[in-house]
Amino acid sequence: MADKPFLPEQIADHNARHIAALTDEYEALGRALGRRGIDIDGVKAKVSGFSLALPTWATGRGGTRFAKFPIPGEPTNIHEKLADCAVVQQLSRAAPRVSLHFPWDGASDYVALREEAEAYGLGFDAVNSNTFQDQPGAEHSYRSGSLGAADTAVRAQAIRHNIDCIEIGKTLGSKALTVWVGDGSNFPGQQDFTRALDRYIEATSEIYSRLPDDWQLLLEHKMFEPAFYSTIISDWGSSLMAAQELGPKAKCLVDLGHHAPNVNIEQIVARLHRVGRLGGFHFNDSKYGDDDLDSGSINPHQLFLVFNELAEAEARVPGPTPAYMIDQSHNVTDPIESLLSSTESIVSAFAKAALIDRDALHDAQDRDDPMMAFQALRRAYRVDVSAIVAMARMEAGGAIDVLEFYRDSGWRARKAQERKPVGLGAGIV
Amino acid sequence: MADKPFLPEQIADHNARHIAALTDEYEALGRALGRRGIDIDGVKAKVSGFSLALPTWATGRGGTRFAKFPIPGEPTNIHEKLADCAVVQQLSRAAPRVSLHFPWDGASDYVALREEAEAYGLGFDAVNSNTFQDQPGAEHSYRSGSLGAADTAVRAQAIRHNIDCIEIGKTLGSKALTVWVGDGSNFPGQQDFTRALDRYIEATSEIYSRLPDDWQLLLEHKMFEPAFYSTIISDWGSSLMAAQELGPKAKCLVDLGHHAPNVNIEQIVARLHRVGRLGGFHFNDSKYGDDDLDSGSINPHQLFLVFNELAEAEARVPGPTPAYMIDQSHNVTDPIESLLSSTESIVSAFAKAALIDRDALHDAQDRDDPMMAFQALRRAYRVDVSAIVAMARMEAGGAIDVLEFYRDSGWRARKAQERKPVGLGAGIV
Amino acid sequence: MADKPFLPEQIADHNARHIAALTDEYEALGRALGRRGIDIDGVKAKVSGFSLALPTWATGRGGTRFAKFPIPGEPTNIHEKLADCAVVQQLSRAAPRVSLHFPWDGASDYVALREEAEAYGLGFDAVNSNTFQDQPGAEHSYRSGSLGAADTAVRAQAIRHNIDCIEIGKTLGSKALTVWVGDGSNFPGQQDFTRALDRYIEATSEIYSRLPDDWQLLLEHKMFEPAFYSTIISDWGSSLMAAQELGPKAKCLVDLGHHAPNVNIEQIVARLHRVGRLGGFHFNDSKYGDDDLDSGSINPHQLFLVFNELAEAEARVPGPTPAYMIDQSHNVTDPIESLLSSTESIVSAFAKAALIDRDALHDAQDRDDPMMAFQALRRAYRVDVSAIVAMARMEAGGAIDVLEFYRDSGWRARKAQERKPVGLGAGIV
Amino acid sequence: MADKPFLPEQIADHNARHIAALTDEYEALGRALGRRGIDIDGVKAKVSGFSLALPTWATGRGGTRFAKFPIPGEPTNIHEKLADCAVVQQLSRAAPRVSLHFPWDGASDYVALREEAEAYGLGFDAVNSNTFQDQPGAEHSYRSGSLGAADTAVRAQAIRHNIDCIEIGKTLGSKALTVWVGDGSNFPGQQDFTRALDRYIEATSEIYSRLPDDWQLLLEHKMFEPAFYSTIISDWGSSLMAAQELGPKAKCLVDLGHHAPNVNIEQIVARLHRVGRLGGFHFNDSKYGDDDLDSGSINPHQLFLVFNELAEAEARVPGPTPAYMIDQSHNVTDPIESLLSSTESIVSAFAKAALIDRDALHDAQDRDDPMMAFQALRRAYRVDVSAIVAMARMEAGGAIDVLEFYRDSGWRARKAQERKPVGLGAGIV
Repeated sequence: MADKPFLPEQIADHNARHIAALTDEYEALGRALGRRGIDIDGVKAKVSGFSLALPTWATGRGGTRFAKFPIPGEPTNIHEKLADCAVVQQLSRAAPRVSLHFPWDGASDYVALREEAEAYGLGFDAVNSNTFQDQPGAEHSYRSGSLGAADTAVRAQAIRHNIDCIEIGKTLGSKALTVWVGDGSNFPGQQDFTRALDRYIEATSEIYSRLPDDWQLLLEHKMFEPAFYSTIISDWGSSLMAAQELGPKAKCLVDLGHHAPNVNIEQIVARLHRVGRLGGFHFNDSKYGDDDLDSGSINPHQLFLVFNELAEAEARVPGPTPAYMIDQSHNVTDPIESLLSSTESIVSAFAKAALIDRDALHDAQDRDDPMMAFQALRRAYRVDVSAIVAMARMEAGGAIDVLEFYRDSGWRARKAQERKPVGLGAGIV
Repeated sequence: MADKPFLPEQIADHNARHIAALTDEYEALGRALGRRGIDIDGVKAKVSGFSLALPTWATGRGGTRFAKFPIPGEPTNIHEKLADCAVVQQLSRAAPRVSLHFPWDGASDYVALREEAEAYGLGFDAVNSNTFQDQPGAEHSYRSGSLGAADTAVRAQAIRHNIDCIEIGKTLGSKALTVWVGDGSNFPGQQDFTRALDRYIEATSEIYSRLPDDWQLLLEHKMFEPAFYSTIISDWGSSLMAAQELGPKAKCLVDLGHHAPNVNIEQIVARLHRVGRLGGFHFNDSKYGDDDLDSGSINPHQLFLVFNELAEAEARVPGPTPAYMIDQSHNVTDPIESLLSSTESIVSAFAKAALIDRDALHDAQDRDDPMMAFQALRRAYRVDVSAIVAMARMEAGGAIDVLEFYRDSGWRARKAQERKPVGLGAGIV
Repeated sequence: MADKPFLPEQIADHNARHIAALTDEYEALGRALGRRGIDIDGVKAKVSGFSLALPTWATGRGGTRFAKFPIPGEPTNIHEKLADCAVVQQLSRAAPRVSLHFPWDGASDYVALREEAEAYGLGFDAVNSNTFQDQPGAEHSYRSGSLGAADTAVRAQAIRHNIDCIEIGKTLGSKALTVWVGDGSNFPGQQDFTRALDRYIEATSEIYSRLPDDWQLLLEHKMFEPAFYSTIISDWGSSLMAAQELGPKAKCLVDLGHHAPNVNIEQIVARLHRVGRLGGFHFNDSKYGDDDLDSGSINPHQLFLVFNELAEAEARVPGPTPAYMIDQSHNVTDPIESLLSSTESIVSAFAKAALIDRDALHDAQDRDDPMMAFQALRRAYRVDVSAIVAMARMEAGGAIDVLEFYRDSGWRARKAQERKPVGLGAGIV
Repeated sequence: MADKPFLPEQIADHNARHIAALTDEYEALGRALGRRGIDIDGVKAKVSGFSLALPTWATGRGGTRFAKFPIPGEPTNIHEKLADCAVVQQLSRAAPRVSLHFPWDGASDYVALREEAEAYGLGFDAVNSNTFQDQPGAEHSYRSGSLGAADTAVRAQAIRHNIDCIEIGKTLGSKALTVWVGDGSNFPGQQDFTRALDRYIEATSEIYSRLPDDWQLLLEHKMFEPAFYSTIISDWGSSLMAAQELGPKAKCLVDLGHHAPNVNIEQIVARLHRVGRLGGFHFNDSKYGDDDLDSGSINPHQLFLVFNELAEAEARVPGPTPAYMIDQSHNVTDPIESLLSSTESIVSAFAKAALIDRDALHDAQDRDDPMMAFQALRRAYRVDVSAIVAMARMEAGGAIDVLEFYRDSGWRARKAQERKPVGLGAGIV
């Protein structure tokens, strides 16, 4: 059985060096927030309750169509990926679930895999199917689409694969299947928009019908790539249309990098929540397209505004939290460092949203006072919540300075000795 | 009573000078199409059946927030605007309907106005309400929104105005009300996305309830401007959501310039048609935002792709044609010239779409042959359909070369003598 | 002579209510920064040295092409605008210069105007010419361009106007002329790109030749609006090309909202500085186009990254600071409140950039350690610098909470009694 | 020695079936153009003089970071790629040059390769270096950049590779080296914009110094991908800055898909030509980013507007034609079919630009008559020039219907027997 990556004593030693400074900063912030009528411990408690999932594929170096630059010590199978996820969770205490992707994460014994994860303190989030690549030996190619393909046999193969994913997910304890397809076209005329969507919905209905009652089907839209003229589920409107036709367990999943330039994503979050269809969120950041950069590295204010909508929605209609997951491509960093840093960014954005004085906000909105409504958000965004996030993390057994601890630990260098190297190539796999 | 702007003899004289060349070109094209199995006269008949509406506001010079540069002879009231629309219709034979906008087009006697239009051979298309500007003496300001405003009294005023528009429209013979609102926000936090949409839908429901049975309510979405952070009906997803909640007479209206950069608008057309909610189309062109440029001047291929979807939809589920209207801002041209040129572009795009061999297209789609599917479109797009469009126009009484006829006619110079000048200023009004 | 808007005692009373909290926050932050080796008083001193200019036009409500919604108490002449700028400067202590725009700010006696400003503690920044609108009675129209117009007489009028602006600026003590033109086209073909730029540069050379030796000519590029197909100085490449041909006193001015979607503006700042052509900066924020929203309201991180480049450039080649100015359109707020809030955002971004450990940053860059290079920026961005900014402001005689003081002061309500109302309309003027 | 792919008799047989229809269409178009004062044979002669280069990499299936879907019969070495280029040239008569890319196209004997190409009737265009991927066994990695890398040894390796490319190119008869680098960053702070550009220019200067006198160095800018926060040569301004510092043999190369959304690319062409720095053009099309779609498939009007600028520039300052090359990624088609179809689109755009009445255009521009200036372009764009292009092609020995001939020839099926299969994978190689 797997042990946790680090000894509690190692983490305790690290924290001992930082606790005095942290305490001073936490207390000072506590006084400042107190003057605004905010109880810092209450905020910390909310922060402690927040968690997200890690996708296994983000534990390895990602690449572009031009190249991939592997690093020594990358994980090369599901067991090594789990170990790396365990590092992130042990240090950050905010990433207790892992999201698997098939066939990339195939294992011979999923019961054993579940036990392996549990020993790390990890559970399993949504399972992800892959019908955008051909697998060696596959009977049919997805070159012309999958769930929306014109060829019945191709669709049947894609449906079977998704059902297989559900079966694995049941064993793992997952409660959702995430479906993202690359179906689309590169030429005007290549695809009949309407018939292709009809086929997609019909095929997805078969998957839907095999979904356990307590599962959700998460539909992920994306504007472009790998298709560059049209994409079958290209925007939240198409995603909602499909979800409505599939049934109540079908929900929409929002990825921050899957939209047209300039689009107001936080409003989309509100729109989907309004009709009960906000199923999940994939965190990353982007400047140009589906760049899959580290969360909050490009536009941390947007991340905050998204969490403001999620908090607003939660306050209005309490219900199950959407499935939160990091979905990044770590092309130039140690993936574990990016996951640690990104987790901190995401939790910080959540914490800032928790500081918003919603009564003041609503009051300003109702009085048509845009400046004070904005200031209600800005007063929260401005706060440096690092001390709250670090204190919550430390109290849960994590490290005060996650990046420092990780670098000091020598984890990657050790793994570079143990793990087999990854070859050159291109792409995300 | 108003006479038509030009004598039939004037047009006949013009056509006599061009008929020989046109006939040669029409016959040559007929042979070329015939070799592909296309009957040119059948296409011409389809073209003859196509028509669109002109909005009165497009008969005057438009402007930006920086400036407006009026020209001598602009129309300054609804009667002069009707006369200019009559010019476009008499010459182009493709613009027999006029769309009015209130309060800009207010008249003292709408029965008389209808007769005035009929004398020109014009009817009335959708009526348009205006709750994005304050009118002198208005009780409430739309500075913080209209149908979605937080203030009940503001919403009530906006509802009343829309109902007034319906009443006028009934007198005029209109069958639709187009609602575009500027409601939105310039700051994060300024507007509660969900409550604002709730209010908008509730208010719009009151308007909907006053709609005659054979009318449609056309909801027009737009990404930004005049609001620059969020807009209440910003995209087709929001528009569809609102239409679904309002009822079957509510439809979505697509304007080519109201989308995020890079968005595939022709796919949106297909999506909305698929669920029976495509209500209308506003033609113009754009490079950056809601530029309101002349139709087809920037991206004529996109215009063709839109008509391809409309033709595809019509072939699949025959039904009422969406409400087609030009919606342009003529900032640098004689508005009549832009309307004539744009009408020709739009009719040409329609004609090209009518040339598509749909069986070949579908066959290539079903065989996963992207190149031949694309070529099915390209073979149609490539054709110079000018001769078809001009022949159809001439046979209906219009001019073979509409711009040449109009320039020769001296219409604007004459009107510059008769009409009062428009002052300097900015903006669209 | 004009008195300052508020008595020092009023501000002192306000500050007395806030000083205890501010001191606690400033000291706590000082300890935290001290632990990182940063002297908070040194940062505060840098902050005290930062200042920017206010444009007179931003003291009134702005509008879009659709509408403008005036508020009671708006300034309607240059004297009232100066008074409002004096409010912003007295409270914020960071906006001691005013930028005038002609002919909007025409006065009968510019010597007296300079004394009037000095009594407020205000000086004059760059003067701005206007050749994008026609003035009543103007001999020639700018409808087809100004400095780049095909018509020689139009260009001559535009040149004369710019020279007049220089003359006024000399009297006022300005040291720069900012030239932004709307020249461009709405149709492919309308303008010959090359000949139009040739004419623009030739005309601008005449203006350049009249520039005093210690002045700069600031060229402001913009992607689109009011021209919607092409703009003569549309991007930094065109701006640099023109500046290079004009001579060393010609510099490029960067406005945050004048770029294509997704463009990396901070890199443009670095590029222009690298060749000694970064002349000025117009602060605002945008989500879609030239939205002219409040600085830092949409993307405060971008503002920080811009200041990071400016700090980097200053550290590399110390030299004159670029001309900093706010350039916003206050469509939905009290303009003074937006100027106060925006000034605070801008100064905060400057302060955060001053916190960056440049040695650590460069070291990580040179070691190819993207994560630590990013963390060097993130550690600075994360800090809540409000206490530094407020302390610097207070020590200079300003108010700790500028918005609270302003709202309490009743300034606008008082001015609503004294000033004549602004009429309805559209546009920015 | 290689024979040409097809026997002249095969092509003659094909043409015999189409010549009657083509002649009718050519003559009819000749009459129509003649009525406008245009001599169709003169246009045809211009079309005959137009040619472009094919890049070897476009002869194989391209892919995205997600997947690549190979087809049977793809070329797997430079000899097979040359054979496929020979097919395109023999049928289209417009693609007589091939552009090689190293190390992808490495051969043991470049003298023999040149003879091999000559036997096909092919010459060699610009050579392309590759420092964006690591090669097996390479001493240094380009993971952190190449010509702009912080590490001196990395830059030295990149310089050497480029010099090697020049040496090969000399043997092949090339006259240009095209340099595109992926250097950039994924995080704010990762790269010092100024120092990185300094290093890039210094390194590129060493390459420049090894350039034969009659060569050009073509710098290719690109907004993003593979770097997603910043790119070292991201736009034409940066490209021009580098070219100016390198010297007169350095020119800028424009690729249609390498710009920010909405950018006016035809104006960039005019700007670069104005200062003598327009070195080359990479043809493709795009809707979202560097989609590398088939030329003219998405926006054929833009392609026409680009050729309008090139024709305008040529008319103003006759000089060497920019290096024209197709640069596409054929992800869903038979690459030869895409190259044939794209060549036809490009030649057609050139032919339409040759139809523009430049006197009428300039006259309308000078008279401030936007409508007639636009109509001067539109009258040319509207023409179906297929007959001109096909007639010129046939007279030069090519096929009237290139796609039909190619499909009938069974080339790909035959090659599928002869060539070794390509494996699954992702990316462009």
